Amino acid sequence: MPQEPDRSPDPFGWIEEQRERRSRAGLVRTLRPRPADSPLLDLAGNDYLGLARHPVTVAAAREAVHRWGTGATGSRLVTGSTELHAELEAELADFCGFEAALVFSSGYTANLAAVTALTGRDALVVSDAANHASLIDGCRLARARTAVVPHADPGAVGRALDGFDGRALAVTDAVFSVDGDAAPLPGLAAVCRAHGAALLVDDAHGLGVLGDGGRGAPYAAGLSGAPDVVATVTLSKSLGSQGGAVLGPAGVIDHLVNTARSFVFDTGLAPAAAGAALAALRLLRAEPGRAARVREAAGRLYGRLTAAGLEATRPDAAVVSVRAPSPEAAVRWAADCRAAGLAVGCFRPPSVPDGVSRLRLTARADLSVTELDAAAATVARTAPAV
Amino acid sequence: MPQEPDRSPDPFGWIEEQRERRSRAGLVRTLRPRPADSPLLDLAGNDYLGLARHPVTVAAAREAVHRWGTGATGSRLVTGSTELHAELEAELADFCGFEAALVFSSGYTANLAAVTALTGRDALVVSDAANHASLIDGCRLARARTAVVPHADPGAVGRALDGFDGRALAVTDAVFSVDGDAAPLPGLAAVCRAHGAALLVDDAHGLGVLGDGGRGAPYAAGLSGAPDVVATVTLSKSLGSQGGAVLGPAGVIDHLVNTARSFVFDTGLAPAAAGAALAALRLLRAEPGRAARVREAAGRLYGRLTAAGLEATRPDAAVVSVRAPSPEAAVRWAADCRAAGLAVGCFRPPSVPDGVSRLRLTARADLSVTELDAAAATVARTAPAV
Ligand SMILES: Cc1ncc(COP(=O)(O)O)c(C=O)c1O
Ligand SMILES: Cc1ncc(COP(=O)(O)O)c(C=O)c1O
Repeated sequence: MPQEPDRSPDPFGWIEEQRERRSRAGLVRTLRPRPADSPLLDLAGNDYLGLARHPVTVAAAREAVHRWGTGATGSRLVTGSTELHAELEAELADFCGFEAALVFSSGYTANLAAVTALTGRDALVVSDAANHASLIDGCRLARARTAVVPHADPGAVGRALDGFDGRALAVTDAVFSVDGDAAPLPGLAAVCRAHGAALLVDDAHGLGVLGDGGRGAPYAAGLSGAPDVVATVTLSKSLGSQGGAVLGPAGVIDHLVNTARSFVFDTGLAPAAAGAALAALRLLRAEPGRAARVREAAGRLYGRLTAAGLEATRPDAAVVSVRAPSPEAAVRWAADCRAAGLAVGCFRPPSVPDGVSRLRLTARADLSVTELDAAAATVARTAPAV
Repeated sequence: MPQEPDRSPDPFGWIEEQRERRSRAGLVRTLRPRPADSPLLDLAGNDYLGLARHPVTVAAAREAVHRWGTGATGSRLVTGSTELHAELEAELADFCGFEAALVFSSGYTANLAAVTALTGRDALVVSDAANHASLIDGCRLARARTAVVPHADPGAVGRALDGFDGRALAVTDAVFSVDGDAAPLPGLAAVCRAHGAALLVDDAHGLGVLGDGGRGAPYAAGLSGAPDVVATVTLSKSLGSQGGAVLGPAGVIDHLVNTARSFVFDTGLAPAAAGAALAALRLLRAEPGRAARVREAAGRLYGRLTAAGLEATRPDAAVVSVRAPSPEAAVRWAADCRAAGLAVGCFRPPSVPDGVSRLRLTARADLSVTELDAAAATVARTAPAV
């Protein structure tokens, strides 16, 4: 083929321009790898029940590697389904009160699968304005008509569904990841039923925290096992592992096996992650008090923060967020906490639905009252002057 | 809110209709969980180098769980980056000849990230017709203008780029997952350069198999480290683990850290998977003959199959595919192989780019000549009459 003149020496020149713009706006992110023996008190991660380093989950992951190897070796429909995956799916479904479950390599790919496979080009998706990125990406991938509705507003969902005659799906986080508030599930389910629409609930932050013994938000709302409700969960937060799952009627799960691209074309979850999540689930069953403990811890954190005059969100689950006056102030605040021995999350645009930067604190079931109070005191002491 | 009359008792009724249609077309898929001690000879998985059960990778995964816990506990920008992730990224980049690397929870999410973050609504993506589902989903998510071009055809890529003035990215599998043929990387790179476009190469099936000691297809083509070339890899095939990575110029990697949604909003890869992949990479360095061995094994398999009169694809890497006359015949053929002790992949619509069903056989570096010959003999013996 004839060589044309070189047009542009650097097709990535625009990346450098974007970088400079981010830098001027105080929105640069950099990775900060942590050591294994970090001395920080961790109120930034999502290991709500303290199971990521629990001796029982650690032993189960190690045993799974020994027995099954380091990878699944193929997609779930080829060689990537082991009896361990099947066992995890059965116990997850049973624990959360659903007929069937399907395990994915991440909560992200589980959400892509659920939204795309339950909709399609002619469908209508009604999506809460504060939904997680993976649900939003699912809407985009589905190429369905998407109505983004005001946050936590069943009436708005009903108005979006009004008059639509085809396949419709309402989609919501059960517990919103940034502010930790719970979705009005009973109201959403009622409005969906009235309109013949299905309801998809992402229980990433509810599993292990909400519902009897941590069976999750759909269970708590009496919606698990309903023929028109599908839930997704992650194995990466309360269960301390990696992976995700879709829970629902057996026919829906079979449909996902046959059609969901991020299931069919993705390597199965590694055995170590499946084994750890299964062990975590069994710990939840054996010690059902963990879920209540993390909710209490979140409530205590919230009480201390508001008592100190900070603008914190009242936690419906394990997450408490505290508003910061600007992205730069949030970064500085988080850095000051870190310097004082406390790791907190720092959320800035574009990772916040409303453009407001905040610190995100997560309660853990394995923190003492002393630790929680000390953490709240550190956050208050380092708070930017308003 | 007023309760409207119940419109549809089952919003998932259409799923049952689709199931019946699949059933009539012979396209039903079901999971078949395997036991840990399967007696089958495995020519179905993607564990090309036999590292998923290698004592060294197994020990490394177990050690990683012991040291780091069962999960990353958060997204990579919050708590999910450990020193183990950083070490893996540095060694991956170095091994494959790129400036920098970024590890993801899967090859799937790595591809979503690379395509979306390197394009955007105003961009043009030129995508090979046989590209992997995750690259296609990346194009959809990017909402860029996408030109799908005939398979493995640099001239067609050039024509698609002709006259386009904005940000452009050509996207290709390095080794196509179904038929195992290699992309014409030097021709693609030349035509991209002539047009000022960037080139994204998905080396899922090239890493560990192609290039000096398994450094991958971009390395073999002299493209690794180029300022206009980005590669993605998975940790789930030759490296026997789970996860994926994007490799490229440091500025591009920094851009992904800041903007790629499937990076920013996804929990970090579990330590066990990172540890296993790192150990696999070090094994590749220490024993560089593995890559050549798997290519030899694929060549031998191909020779035996074609000598037996089967229509097989000449392997450029580790994958050999054999055409089947119909989806039903492919399923029966794979079942007959299985009954004879051999696991092979069975690919049917919609998982094949051209609608042609086939068996997919993968060579492994750890199979003996006797095993390979016996496998080919089984495939030939069970072949459907034409
Ligand atoms: C609400 C919500 N859904 C889905 C996910 C994705 O899950 P995972 O990180 O396990 O992929 C997350 C977190 O990352 C989340 O917060
Ligand atoms: C060409 C190609 N790209 C990407 C992927 C996705 O990688 P992973 O399965 O590790 O998510 C696969 C296989 O699944 C593949 O074959």
